[in-house]
Amino acid sequence: MKIYGDSISGNCLKVKWTAEALGRPFEWIEVDIQKGESRTPEFLALNPSGQVPMVVLDDGRPLAQSNAIILHLAEGSHLVPADAYDRARMLEWMFWEQYSHEPYIAVARFRVVYQGQAVSDLDPGLVTRGWAALGRMEAALEASPFLVGGAVSLADVALVAYTRMSHEGGFTLENHPAIRAWIGRVEQALKIG
Amino acid sequence: MKIYGDSISGNCLKVKWTAEALGRPFEWIEVDIQKGESRTPEFLALNPSGQVPMVVLDDGRPLAQSNAIILHLAEGSHLVPADAYDRARMLEWMFWEQYSHEPYIAVARFRVVYQGQAVSDLDPGLVTRGWAALGRMEAALEASPFLVGGAVSLADVALVAYTRMSHEGGFTLENHPAIRAWIGRVEQALKIG
Repeated sequence: MKIYGDSISGNCLKVKWTAEALGRPFEWIEVDIQKGESRTPEFLALNPSGQVPMVVLDDGRPLAQSNAIILHLAEGSHLVPADAYDRARMLEWMFWEQYSHEPYIAVARFRVVYQGQAVSDLDPGLVTRGWAALGRMEAALEASPFLVGGAVSLADVALVAYTRMSHEGGFTLENHPAIRAWIGRVEQALKIG
Repeated sequence: MKIYGDSISGNCLKVKWTAEALGRPFEWIEVDIQKGESRTPEFLALNPSGQVPMVVLDDGRPLAQSNAIILHLAEGSHLVPADAYDRARMLEWMFWEQYSHEPYIAVARFRVVYQGQAVSDLDPGLVTRGWAALGRMEAALEASPFLVGGAVSLADVALVAYTRMSHEGGFTLENHPAIRAWIGRVEQALKIG
């Protein structure tokens, strides 16, 4: 399997961590988004959305969207709950991540770290929504060691990717002890960090 | 099963259509987002994200996020491909819908129809990204009758919801004949429209 990814992207790291946690061999092909390398004709032929991560499976077929990729790789593994309702809650967190977390937490980090914007100049609406996302996670993790019950799942993989870097965009986690402890647990479970 | 939804929301209609296509009985509970009915203490106790749709399953347990709900309801049905790679492509479209389609196509419609903004006053970046999403769909549907191969799947359910209303936000589909024909096929397959 080939993973096309940009090492600065949490979405791409999700795929790397999942492959490593499953002991699945892969070749990492670095794609620099900021240099437009996901917009070349060759890349667009594999993924018309022009987004990374993107994988080419062992049989040559492409697959995109970080959460779709890790769901495919991890099907039937310990990273996907056996119980149908738990599996549905995992998917709930994964869709929530892409809609209500990544667009604020990841985007703030990108603007600060890679575009040089000051944290104090970030769009206040973006900051408010980022804190709301972290507040929801804090409440959930006060009640449960992982996002879905007692064991690590793809919900944790998807959410930890940008949450562990949230301080880079100004979202320091001083008042979020449950999230901080959870990051440590997930890093240990996935052997990352 | 109880479905909490706002009838003006394509995300909510996805859940209704899926339940109907599967012959699954449900009670529809109307939640008016614009009146703040998804932000009451009672609602937030069921879904801390304050979003609709949300279902309460027959055993009383809640589940949120439109695409997570329809994946749960349709597991093992004809709306989910049996082949693992096809299933992964379906998920790829569903995550893409929430990240690269809904935030432009659905948001434009909401601003025009419910907030009274003129189409000509929409944020040009939003309009550009909306057209890019529709362009990608048109290319895919020139090659295939449904988004994943030859049969309707949850990818079509997820994407048709706002695409069939895209003209309400200024995205007329005169130059997208493959999308128009596909909308008709999906409406027929799901018995909606």
